[in-house]
Amino acid sequence: MYLAKITIGLKEGMLDPEATAIRHALGNLGYETDELRTKKLFLVRFDATDAREAEEKARGMCERLLANPVIHHFEIEVHR
Amino acid sequence: MYLAKITIGLKEGMLDPEATAIRHALGNLGYETDELRTKKLFLVRFDATDAREAEEKARGMCERLLANPVIHHFEIEVHR
Repeated sequence: MYLAKITIGLKEGMLDPEATAIRHALGNLGYETDELRTKKLFLVRFDATDAREAEEKARGMCERLLANPVIHHFEIEVHR
Repeated sequence: MYLAKITIGLKEGMLDPEATAIRHALGNLGYETDELRTKKLFLVRFDATDAREAEEKARGMCERLLANPVIHHFEIEVHR
């Protein structure tokens, strides 16, 4: 059994209106920020024969469902 | 300048319909999973006099805006 930690974020230069809204709201509460980025994390547990297969599966999940390759980049960490 | 990495997830036992839907869709693509959790990551850069103040500020942002204490738990990592 493997645990894949998949982090999905917007590619450099993509507009992030959610981050803009949060920065604005934080500013209204007195928290001045210089930068804010939002990402999505998926922790997925599944069977694989070895770490290499686990990473390939996780990459397939990203490419076929979790991420939109036009706007997202993703990072995968696989743990036993 | 500090960078706070804030991870927000649902508390143990809270229903996560998004995760259920994603597991279902992954299964339809041939990816059987045993568990899937979704979390939100915020990378926030801001000024603080020291690491302790930076962590306090990040905690304040969570408690006052980013997290809903009824359903979420959060973790904070502060880096220079």
